[in-house]
Amino acid sequence: MGEAFGRWRIGDTDDASLMPLISSANIAAGFHAGDPNLMDETVRLAVSHGVGVGAHPGYPDLQGFGRRRIAGTGKELVNDIVYQVGALKEFARRHGAQLQHVKPHGALYMEMAVNAELSRIFVEYMRTVQPNTFIFCMGGSATWQAARDVGQPVIREFYADRDYDDSGSIVFTRDAGRPDPKQIAQKVVRACTEGKVRTVTGNDIDIAFESVCFHSDTLGAFDIASRMREALKAAGIRIAPVSTIAT
Amino acid sequence: MGEAFGRWRIGDTDDASLMPLISSANIAAGFHAGDPNLMDETVRLAVSHGVGVGAHPGYPDLQGFGRRRIAGTGKELVNDIVYQVGALKEFARRHGAQLQHVKPHGALYMEMAVNAELSRIFVEYMRTVQPNTFIFCMGGSATWQAARDVGQPVIREFYADRDYDDSGSIVFTRDAGRPDPKQIAQKVVRACTEGKVRTVTGNDIDIAFESVCFHSDTLGAFDIASRMREALKAAGIRIAPVSTIAT
Amino acid sequence: MGEAFGRWRIGDTDDASLMPLISSANIAAGFHAGDPNLMDETVRLAVSHGVGVGAHPGYPDLQGFGRRRIAGTGKELVNDIVYQVGALKEFARRHGAQLQHVKPHGALYMEMAVNAELSRIFVEYMRTVQPNTFIFCMGGSATWQAARDVGQPVIREFYADRDYDDSGSIVFTRDAGRPDPKQIAQKVVRACTEGKVRTVTGNDIDIAFESVCFHSDTLGAFDIASRMREALKAAGIRIAPVSTIAT
Amino acid sequence: MGEAFGRWRIGDTDDASLMPLISSANIAAGFHAGDPNLMDETVRLAVSHGVGVGAHPGYPDLQGFGRRRIAGTGKELVNDIVYQVGALKEFARRHGAQLQHVKPHGALYMEMAVNAELSRIFVEYMRTVQPNTFIFCMGGSATWQAARDVGQPVIREFYADRDYDDSGSIVFTRDAGRPDPKQIAQKVVRACTEGKVRTVTGNDIDIAFESVCFHSDTLGAFDIASRMREALKAAGIRIAPVSTIAT
Repeated sequence: MGEAFGRWRIGDTDDASLMPLISSANIAAGFHAGDPNLMDETVRLAVSHGVGVGAHPGYPDLQGFGRRRIAGTGKELVNDIVYQVGALKEFARRHGAQLQHVKPHGALYMEMAVNAELSRIFVEYMRTVQPNTFIFCMGGSATWQAARDVGQPVIREFYADRDYDDSGSIVFTRDAGRPDPKQIAQKVVRACTEGKVRTVTGNDIDIAFESVCFHSDTLGAFDIASRMREALKAAGIRIAPVSTIAT
Repeated sequence: MGEAFGRWRIGDTDDASLMPLISSANIAAGFHAGDPNLMDETVRLAVSHGVGVGAHPGYPDLQGFGRRRIAGTGKELVNDIVYQVGALKEFARRHGAQLQHVKPHGALYMEMAVNAELSRIFVEYMRTVQPNTFIFCMGGSATWQAARDVGQPVIREFYADRDYDDSGSIVFTRDAGRPDPKQIAQKVVRACTEGKVRTVTGNDIDIAFESVCFHSDTLGAFDIASRMREALKAAGIRIAPVSTIAT
Repeated sequence: MGEAFGRWRIGDTDDASLMPLISSANIAAGFHAGDPNLMDETVRLAVSHGVGVGAHPGYPDLQGFGRRRIAGTGKELVNDIVYQVGALKEFARRHGAQLQHVKPHGALYMEMAVNAELSRIFVEYMRTVQPNTFIFCMGGSATWQAARDVGQPVIREFYADRDYDDSGSIVFTRDAGRPDPKQIAQKVVRACTEGKVRTVTGNDIDIAFESVCFHSDTLGAFDIASRMREALKAAGIRIAPVSTIAT
Repeated sequence: MGEAFGRWRIGDTDDASLMPLISSANIAAGFHAGDPNLMDETVRLAVSHGVGVGAHPGYPDLQGFGRRRIAGTGKELVNDIVYQVGALKEFARRHGAQLQHVKPHGALYMEMAVNAELSRIFVEYMRTVQPNTFIFCMGGSATWQAARDVGQPVIREFYADRDYDDSGSIVFTRDAGRPDPKQIAQKVVRACTEGKVRTVTGNDIDIAFESVCFHSDTLGAFDIASRMREALKAAGIRIAPVSTIAT
């Protein structure tokens, strides 16, 4: 959420429409998207809907929307994260909210998923933020492993609007196009109830997670969110901010 | 034109729809909007429609869309313009086009309109670009005066989607909202045929110009352009790139 | 402090030399200078010397070093400040320090000094940061007045390396050149002991303050700091972080 | 050259001292370093010393000084180059100079050296710039090969202040430290006269080149340039802009 910049927007769905449909928000913090005015508005919007406030730090790459990898040392990248988390926390504080979680964005998320050293430095930082600030990441990733190693609260995500490969990782793309909302809803319900997802090669793999992620810039995001919500409800699955659920 | 950035867009009208409806394009050059990929695409689009290619240099302010004044010396601001004009010229050259004109953008345009020293340095630069590169500005502005002083080709603009004050200047705004396309078309035809425009105080003033300007980010830009074009045609007025008309 | 960027530096004095000589540091927060790595290093350096940590938010203008005014609404400018203060606070927290104060930088400081509305919104924000976070500003400025109106702790600054006009305001400059350290030391001691300063027109005016400010980018900053410190000590004046002194 | 930004500087040597000692300048064009004011000054300085003017386009990464690789498609990266070359060309034109050459900077240079597709798109662009605009690159690199494939004028560089590996490539570093000027001068003369260089593993390899490159941000750049120049002169080697020498 908040992945606009200045007067520009992306995708076909505005945050005000999506916010009532979600339980946790990853809010852009100015490096890959977002600016101070948008952060203020987006945090306010999330709080008003009881949505968990998460920081969504990315690479310093507005033009590439944080979906281009930038080489950097672990220390540098975590300093970039500290900066963005601090800024987002301050807007959260202004609106009476606590930071629920941190989720690195885009190419930084993918880099961290395979970079044990970066994940370790990130988790080390996260341990100091607050005892109960969650890390959102892929199950089985280096980030998940690093969080588990030291007992940092961690939430595994299932990606509704991204494809999976046989390793259980999502297939990274800079542009997701316009997926079919109905298929997404079916995929998500299946993942929730059966713990299975079909990969790009046509295999079924096991998948474990506590949160379902989708992107506000994916075309048709409103329909995706609406159908998922409906389908999850029909399947008897409760949707709630992770901070309100024991882990 | 080309006033997007990275994956973000603004307004409700894309450039591909507008380009067939216009004769000259002010193309953003990276400081207030635009990036190298967009500049490449936008110049290509303009050339393919026989639209005159103009550079649209702005303040270095992506977040504020170049509509926030930044204090700077005349020399500094013209160096910013030289940089952006050079970049745009290179994309024009790649696509086999000559630079038809330069039009400063937004708050820089308004600053230049009242700043004789800045206008003088800008015109001095423009004289070296090419003998016949036009400056687009408001009639009566300091920029217009500076161009006239040295015989630099200059085009006066009429603003279709902005209000006028009694001094003959437009009323600067950071956001134009959604004006009525029909009223705009009437206003433009009247300005073309009678040389009159009604100001915000309700007075009619004389207005002289050679070009009609509207903004691609104004809501309803496609309707505005379509109706203006139709109304101008109905009034027997020919629309053409300034480079094809004697001045 | 921390007013470098990436691999670039400014002035002839490094922060490691200056830090032992000062009691409170205004630390750049990324908009006019500073980057996450520098902020981390600078806060660490300040804490290690027992120097009070202050956030130094500026205009988003790296090229102009925040010394070019950018037009913006009070709400926008304070959102820029919130963002930067949040980021700096997070680095302070990492290094076990509390934020002692906030001091807007450069042209933003000067704008705020004369802009009652902006000062009011800024002070309103500062009241929420922490009960005892100081604002640094000029005595008599709109910022000082706004802080006094609501009882927000405020520190008046005396500018060692800037000239005064007869109104008691400093004369804003984008580049201070290389002033004479000896004259600065005399000027500061006189201001501390007599409460007087000579203005650019040659008049003596009254001046009241609790802190002496100088700039790390002024040429000869190390000599300036050393001589001032020595002269103040010789005059029996104690130098200490404002957080350790009753106000 | 021109690798400063705004009021910040790097290294211990200013461009005005170095310019009389060199024959061709790679001038930063705003993405990894440089800004419009610096580009104007630097081009003017180069022209006044009869130094060949080259564009030095880099990754859009001021904080990392263009020494951090940014993932991007070949088309994107070449659009970034077109933008920067256009801007630099315009400053050259203002100062009555032609663009002598283009040399990608830092991590972009290294990426291009191993990326055949990117090199091909870059060379294709270079062929349109002017018939005789040189590409500067490493001998044997993908860039050199791509230029040779289509007959684009190309200059191979020898790196005075970087180490070589056994493949004949330089060892990329984000910070070169302070090498010994005397050793550099010996290394360069040997490379010029014997066509040999010692690698980091202690082997001697053959090296062929037409230009000697060193970095203005390497500590001791003035001494390095002075000693090299002296040693080359003593060895009877003439130093001149490549545009004045048949290739």
